[in-house]
Amino acid sequence: MPSLIEMRCVPCRGGEPTVADGEIPELNLQVPEWKIVEIDHIKRLERVFKFKNFAEALKFTNQVGELAEAEGHHPAILTEWGRVTVTWWTHKIKGLHRNDFIMAAKTDKIPQQ
Amino acid sequence: MPSLIEMRCVPCRGGEPTVADGEIPELNLQVPEWKIVEIDHIKRLERVFKFKNFAEALKFTNQVGELAEAEGHHPAILTEWGRVTVTWWTHKIKGLHRNDFIMAAKTDKIPQQ
Repeated sequence: MPSLIEMRCVPCRGGEPTVADGEIPELNLQVPEWKIVEIDHIKRLERVFKFKNFAEALKFTNQVGELAEAEGHHPAILTEWGRVTVTWWTHKIKGLHRNDFIMAAKTDKIPQQ
Repeated sequence: MPSLIEMRCVPCRGGEPTVADGEIPELNLQVPEWKIVEIDHIKRLERVFKFKNFAEALKFTNQVGELAEAEGHHPAILTEWGRVTVTWWTHKIKGLHRNDFIMAAKTDKIPQQ
């Protein structure tokens, strides 16, 4: 499998299958800091990033936002004092698409100052 | 009671009482769009703001962040495509302080473009 970080999101039109449960461990190997969480019966990729204050957390939120706009795929970003929780999933298929793993890999490359 | 919007947050050192349950309805009258939610046994003030896309939502998140930094009191801000959920509570007292109602009133004054 090519590296996720080198891939780009492909348009997801709905009706496409979610990533098969059997594929998840292999994809997760490339983004090991991300947990698979299931909320409202929808599998999602989630990672908490820690920062030294609120301003640094908000700066990171904006960088994730820039990435999201560039790729046309948007996460949920919870900004709190000293931490940001990023959650990726694909609304249209109510689950995980390969795009979400690509975005997780790209999120990991944002510097956490 | 003076208008919440004219008040400033006071330092909360912990050990102070939370807003009494009896006071909540009166304070809530000034910020009627905010719901009282209880998560992990901690009462919080929560409001969802709607936007037309992700960029507008993120812009609002930054405005709430600026307000938080100016007042030295920080919320949880969940940024998603087209919506921002803002939650105020006071960590040190594990509940609602008058500061939280003041911040809710000030958040309401941010333009939602």
